[in-house]
Amino acid sequence: MREYEIYELLHRYGIKTPRYKVYEIDQEFYFDHFPAVLKIASDKVVHKSDVGGVRVGIHSNEELQQAKREIINNLQNNSIFLDMNDRFIVEEEVHGVEFYIGGIFDSIFEEVLLFGKGGVTIEIERDICYIDSEADEPEILKSFRTTKISKIFPKFRGKEYKIAYVIDTIEKFQKLFTHEDIVEFDINPLVYTDEGFVAVDARVKTGQKSRAPRRQRSFDIFHNEKVAILGATDKPQKVGYALAKNALQSGADIYFVNPRLSRLFGKRVYKAIQELPDIDTAVIAIPSRYVLQSVEELAHKGAKNIIVISAGFKEVGNQEAEEELTKMAEHYDLNILGPNSLGLYNGDKELNLTFAADSILPGHIGLISQSGAVLSALIDKSLSYALGFSHILSLGNMADFDFADAIETLQNKRRCRYINLYAEGLTHGKPYLRAIRKSAKPIAIYKAGKSEEAKRAAFSHTGNISGDYEMLVGLSYAAGAIIKKDIDELVFSSLYAEKREALIVTNAGGPGTILTDILVSHGKKMASLDEETIQKLSAVLPPTWSKNNPIDIIGDATSKRYKAVLDIVYDEKRLIFVIVTPQYMTDGLNIAKTLLAYPNAVPIFFGEERFKEAFELFKEHKRIHFNDLENVANIL
Amino acid sequence: MREYEIYELLHRYGIKTPRYKVYEIDQEFYFDHFPAVLKIASDKVVHKSDVGGVRVGIHSNEELQQAKREIINNLQNNSIFLDMNDRFIVEEEVHGVEFYIGGIFDSIFEEVLLFGKGGVTIEIERDICYIDSEADEPEILKSFRTTKISKIFPKFRGKEYKIAYVIDTIEKFQKLFTHEDIVEFDINPLVYTDEGFVAVDARVKTGQKSRAPRRQRSFDIFHNEKVAILGATDKPQKVGYALAKNALQSGADIYFVNPRLSRLFGKRVYKAIQELPDIDTAVIAIPSRYVLQSVEELAHKGAKNIIVISAGFKEVGNQEAEEELTKMAEHYDLNILGPNSLGLYNGDKELNLTFAADSILPGHIGLISQSGAVLSALIDKSLSYALGFSHILSLGNMADFDFADAIETLQNKRRCRYINLYAEGLTHGKPYLRAIRKSAKPIAIYKAGKSEEAKRAAFSHTGNISGDYEMLVGLSYAAGAIIKKDIDELVFSSLYAEKREALIVTNAGGPGTILTDILVSHGKKMASLDEETIQKLSAVLPPTWSKNNPIDIIGDATSKRYKAVLDIVYDEKRLIFVIVTPQYMTDGLNIAKTLLAYPNAVPIFFGEERFKEAFELFKEHKRIHFNDLENVANIL
Repeated sequence: MREYEIYELLHRYGIKTPRYKVYEIDQEFYFDHFPAVLKIASDKVVHKSDVGGVRVGIHSNEELQQAKREIINNLQNNSIFLDMNDRFIVEEEVHGVEFYIGGIFDSIFEEVLLFGKGGVTIEIERDICYIDSEADEPEILKSFRTTKISKIFPKFRGKEYKIAYVIDTIEKFQKLFTHEDIVEFDINPLVYTDEGFVAVDARVKTGQKSRAPRRQRSFDIFHNEKVAILGATDKPQKVGYALAKNALQSGADIYFVNPRLSRLFGKRVYKAIQELPDIDTAVIAIPSRYVLQSVEELAHKGAKNIIVISAGFKEVGNQEAEEELTKMAEHYDLNILGPNSLGLYNGDKELNLTFAADSILPGHIGLISQSGAVLSALIDKSLSYALGFSHILSLGNMADFDFADAIETLQNKRRCRYINLYAEGLTHGKPYLRAIRKSAKPIAIYKAGKSEEAKRAAFSHTGNISGDYEMLVGLSYAAGAIIKKDIDELVFSSLYAEKREALIVTNAGGPGTILTDILVSHGKKMASLDEETIQKLSAVLPPTWSKNNPIDIIGDATSKRYKAVLDIVYDEKRLIFVIVTPQYMTDGLNIAKTLLAYPNAVPIFFGEERFKEAFELFKEHKRIHFNDLENVANIL
Repeated sequence: MREYEIYELLHRYGIKTPRYKVYEIDQEFYFDHFPAVLKIASDKVVHKSDVGGVRVGIHSNEELQQAKREIINNLQNNSIFLDMNDRFIVEEEVHGVEFYIGGIFDSIFEEVLLFGKGGVTIEIERDICYIDSEADEPEILKSFRTTKISKIFPKFRGKEYKIAYVIDTIEKFQKLFTHEDIVEFDINPLVYTDEGFVAVDARVKTGQKSRAPRRQRSFDIFHNEKVAILGATDKPQKVGYALAKNALQSGADIYFVNPRLSRLFGKRVYKAIQELPDIDTAVIAIPSRYVLQSVEELAHKGAKNIIVISAGFKEVGNQEAEEELTKMAEHYDLNILGPNSLGLYNGDKELNLTFAADSILPGHIGLISQSGAVLSALIDKSLSYALGFSHILSLGNMADFDFADAIETLQNKRRCRYINLYAEGLTHGKPYLRAIRKSAKPIAIYKAGKSEEAKRAAFSHTGNISGDYEMLVGLSYAAGAIIKKDIDELVFSSLYAEKREALIVTNAGGPGTILTDILVSHGKKMASLDEETIQKLSAVLPPTWSKNNPIDIIGDATSKRYKAVLDIVYDEKRLIFVIVTPQYMTDGLNIAKTLLAYPNAVPIFFGEERFKEAFELFKEHKRIHFNDLENVANIL
């Protein structure tokens, strides 16, 4: 498309361009919006500027005529001779802050807009945000506010900048990109003017868009009344043993299947799927080559939820078998979890259908993990601090059931209060974003695979391309998810999620300063002390105490002084951090014992050798505690 | 200064400006560098653009005449009437990528340049670096390379950008800023052209520069043959007791002073300073009101190094006594460490003159900390992992001895291999940067107090203004320091500092991916596996292993498999990480036992409950280990 044809396309969607006129090669100029630019528009000229095909700063129709002669001369010097198919375009010069808008049709997220600072050095500055084509006004704003250039709105250096123009322009481009056969476009610059954004330089690439279809599901994956376990075994070193043992802990009806076994844990073992009574859920832990056949038989038996523990599919290059699974899920209307899954945990019935070696405590975290190993680690950690789960889904290779399905499923689970995701890559981007948008529960996400090296590592292990980190994180954040920087946060951040105001009690100023930095950078507000509290504290503290939050109770503080202060400031609604550094008079163990009476205070014992017993005590009481300031971020 | 006067100043230092001519109010124009800009230069006009005092895009002398009439009209409409003192400036338009250069005279670092991306949105983009006025070419480059805009050098979008122009321009501004009575200036834009940078818009603020004088030292603070301890006591809850006890562990001559005690630890206690034999070092741990008098007496006694443990000076608002200490240091040519210091450790004699409750192991880390509490914590942690120190200096309030002195002192200490700093604020910026530049040993720095809230906290506790985080960190980095993000790195990063190539052995892909991210972002190179190693590994690993670094040895790996792999890839020169996730078959304790035979492998047991015994074993063997991936950064 020639530039003026793109201008016409933009106009159809209400997007402004500079006022312009197209002239035939021998037509006389008459233009009245100066200063103006004259450009050649010819299929023979690709890079106009390189051959002298552009002239700026024109102030009158006479100068236009003069500029035209110059351009024709320049072109002739480059052996380009114009004919009747060529055109001249005159357009007004547009000045203002330069923005950029672009669009890409991504294999996972489909139409995605990029918006931010424009100009010639755009790829170097990268002050750009990602905006989904389905994002509404608040989501557009949330995304845009992650850019630096957004700070000129609503006012900068005495000039007004209307955020409504941003919304309006992006909405128009969302419409254009969705309705037209465009797979890529760039507008740079998109100039901010007092009348709105004006698209000055435009490039468009047309093409076919192929979209990944998405299934409708009719059955709840957590409907698990009658459960068959294929591959249940009496060999303790096999996962089928762990699965059988874990499953039996709950009240659900469990049926074991194994052709080479008669009884297991005092229960009958079925030789074949055909022998089973009606079931709704099946867990498959048999060699991969038997999986497809079994899924088919289970489907005929009426099973709706199939959890494929077995590995040996996409992640080892067995793409074909994996695709077969996807097709079967669709054909028989199944929920297939996995393959290469650790299983699921259904907290509503305390039904553990994983082969995790740890027991899983009931609680309020809904945890969705692509990696089974990461899930094992998080379960193991949660057990040490008595943290519980409402639901766990190990997605594995995601042949069928994916993140969007998982988020939607957890919406109507009453016990689930937090939805936490560990993601390496995604399959269906748009449904995933829609699920986040609609979620009534907070969604936190940790995304692995940021660097190029890490992406290669991820590819070799799960068969999932990690995808673009910035795009996934940017879109998820704008849609409403919380982005986590440390995997441990996926379980620990649920601990104090509701507490916004933070208070620090410390026996050393430096660490108080550092923790303040960490809290503020995680969006926590530092509580302020009122006059009454300050007076009360002054009555129990040495005169040199800080009179401020962080409450510096001075290096010689013993457990008695910590107790006196906590008795005054302790408040269930606040996030209270107690920093203890190993100074000369510090009685770590006694301070630890004191803290047991204040369950909401978070102990940070910044040391190691002299705090060994204190740490033992906290572990014994399954109390979260830290020996490092930076790690406190894990619970924020 | 009028703009053309600034232009003249810039020319004197060889800095380019646009070609320009200054015209009297009724003088006829004759200019020949078009397109040009016409500007009014009048003391009656402050903001030229706001009153129509600027006209751009002028192509001829006739248009200049026309533009002059327009400007005069515009000014009259704003009730500004020109007279014979006013001037018109005509200058050529300069186009190109817009940079910024500015200078501030900082109370700590004195002349500092700011350089980076220019334009109207500069304070929003902040793509700027700090450059010391004494920085040489490599240091200027190192600083500039932290900006995004530096990426256009040496070539961007087919156009050449000469880095020599950057160096040349900055060197000229360094000279100008140092030689002239300028306390602040801004050039925006500073335009990159094919002939070099051109300063277009300039603003300069002149004024007096007051510089903090710096002392010359004649005595080594670690010359500690005969040491007096003032305030040595038999009361175990007092720091004077700990000081006395710690000091006695070494072979130095220790003398106790306390008017109310006769003997301590079987040694004579002197009643007064006058009774002491000749000493070179004194440690003062007595109430602050007696400190000044004691320093004076000690100076007369010939003491050269005075370590003031006593608090109660600047940090509680006692500015006067602190200034008195500073003066005494100068007057008597003393090294005064503190006040409010934890003391010093002299590893050359294993002499511990701190009141740390932990013992200090000899080793190679030189640790310099402003905060005594942070120092206590780091000593306590180091003890848990058998890490040792060559020298420790607790700077406290820095009435006299500061970071620059400390860095210089450690240069000629043979045992000291790493110089690690914990800083809240600085006193003498330029000597500090010079010391970093000259250092033959790696210098690492952790700076506290990034957010506004944290700065307030720091101010209330040490009496040191935290200073601008970005400036201190930017200048330190360019001068050659390594910037640390976690305090613990100040001791742990010495462990594997020399190893550059990293190798990961893991029983799970996801965590391998995440660790790869962390290593790469910390500048480590991932080792590649050669064909021979891959074949050897294939002989001991299941066929689905990753064939790549990270070496994914699959979830069912037991200690035997870990051992088989380590026997093939273990290499003292490499940084080897062993990730263990608690999967079904994982025998944590056995894997931990196996790892004891590979002292350079770093265990990362990503879990908690199932790894309790493994962690105990590592602690017992004082072996560094992790239960979290992100924390691995502590040793990088």
